[in-house]
Amino acid sequence: MTFDKKLSAIAMRVEQRLADFLSGTRGPAAPPEKLAEAMRYAALGGGKRLRPFLLVESASIFGVRLENALDAAAALECVHNYSLVHDDLPAMDNDAIRRGRDTVHIAFDEATAILAGDGLLTLAFEILAAPETHSDSAVRGELALGLARASGWAGMAGGQSLDLEAEGKSLTVDEIRRLQALKTGALIEYACTAGAVLGQAIGKDRAALEAYGRLLGQAFQLADDLLDVTGDAAKLGKKAGKDQDAGKATLVSTLGIEKARAELSRLETEAITTLERFGERADSLRETARFVSHREH
Amino acid sequence: MTFDKKLSAIAMRVEQRLADFLSGTRGPAAPPEKLAEAMRYAALGGGKRLRPFLLVESASIFGVRLENALDAAAALECVHNYSLVHDDLPAMDNDAIRRGRDTVHIAFDEATAILAGDGLLTLAFEILAAPETHSDSAVRGELALGLARASGWAGMAGGQSLDLEAEGKSLTVDEIRRLQALKTGALIEYACTAGAVLGQAIGKDRAALEAYGRLLGQAFQLADDLLDVTGDAAKLGKKAGKDQDAGKATLVSTLGIEKARAELSRLETEAITTLERFGERADSLRETARFVSHREH
Repeated sequence: MTFDKKLSAIAMRVEQRLADFLSGTRGPAAPPEKLAEAMRYAALGGGKRLRPFLLVESASIFGVRLENALDAAAALECVHNYSLVHDDLPAMDNDAIRRGRDTVHIAFDEATAILAGDGLLTLAFEILAAPETHSDSAVRGELALGLARASGWAGMAGGQSLDLEAEGKSLTVDEIRRLQALKTGALIEYACTAGAVLGQAIGKDRAALEAYGRLLGQAFQLADDLLDVTGDAAKLGKKAGKDQDAGKATLVSTLGIEKARAELSRLETEAITTLERFGERADSLRETARFVSHREH
Repeated sequence: MTFDKKLSAIAMRVEQRLADFLSGTRGPAAPPEKLAEAMRYAALGGGKRLRPFLLVESASIFGVRLENALDAAAALECVHNYSLVHDDLPAMDNDAIRRGRDTVHIAFDEATAILAGDGLLTLAFEILAAPETHSDSAVRGELALGLARASGWAGMAGGQSLDLEAEGKSLTVDEIRRLQALKTGALIEYACTAGAVLGQAIGKDRAALEAYGRLLGQAFQLADDLLDVTGDAAKLGKKAGKDQDAGKATLVSTLGIEKARAELSRLETEAITTLERFGERADSLRETARFVSHREH
């Protein structure tokens, strides 16, 4: 199977699982319909599902079957989508288009978008805390603790705060790296670590996946920044040049395109190197590192 | 010790524990300062801390010492305060004053208020998932699952969604009850259930605390609605008559003041009755039922 086909095959399974959770029939009480509809709109029907893919493929190195990784993968995708909904809000990045269609606050209203984000974030922890996600409560606890750290004030939400503060300022390379490590890196690193946690990997196995996740997160962000400068809107499903227009400092604007491309290439190689100990069991993650570094959208 | 003194003594301990968590020194990485400051502003220095008090007192029935209930109590208070920050936003209830001072989006800005709410919600699950909260990961998992259900789309966030939809509409008594059960009731009920979970109570013991929490939540909301009609702004620390002005349907506007007072009195009695099996160990919760039903702010 080609990498693209594998990515979309898993995306489809994640989509089904998400749709199942978001049907509102799993919990003890039914959620109000308007909010549920906004949450489904926010989380279903789009996206490459890269983070769930990373979780699933990381877990598979340790023998975890796809079926047994899908709940944790769905929880992670809930958090990713909550962050998109809140980031798109008028008070934040003020985006009207996401994945080629209206953002949640445009399709519904601002209050519903705030609540849909809140609801998706909370649902993620509801999923992770449920016994169906893993039979061992210690594993579930570790998954939840890791997700909270990766997505909270010292992770993704903190990165978004730094990003808002940075508008119109010139940041140092170190400041940009910290911002991006929190805003994008933390959740991508978590995806890989969570796979290792699900697989109950320890020691060097786990450390290797953490390192891979960290490098991949950096590569992902750098590729994204390069696309913002060189990509076209049709392929991206959103406006190109957005960061430049907003006066946002990126490594590309600071280092220049050539140096940024060289760093991306180095990150790709390093990420692949960290996987050596896993042999061919990690082929899929190697392909992911190539895909992330060379993607066009 | 009088009830008021007991309530404020525990509020002080909860405040200290919250301040400790919000110092940003507990996790593996330091959070960005502006966001951390907004979260401290949102969560510290105010409020009766009624929900943590309920958790602590419910747990104490089963022999859990205050010290061992404070982490879970702080997590619960994080969620309560996140909901206040988001509910106060311009797109929601658009409130400028809370506890007698500027709301978070006024004191900081709207984007920071959204992120501070997100951060507090996420921190709650970080606390509950941490081994320090309880040595048994199954207990931590149950605490997290319960909190997610009580505060998510089929709980508090769902109630806020119904509340926004209800503005200017006339709701039936049943619709008002459902709205309030989700918006306010779920988290108050959780406070009592969480105490029982921490105390590893089962069967009728646990069911009694669930029933007490449900009745107390209803009493709390009804007393709140009565205060909105009859209270004065100075004591409330916020504008009175707010719900009336916003055209919000409450049980008081639907049933009338006298019937609402009679129902409140019935709820108070029933809540106290559910505690019979615990004897004097539940005296504090009995006093809470009286306090909630007769409070002036």
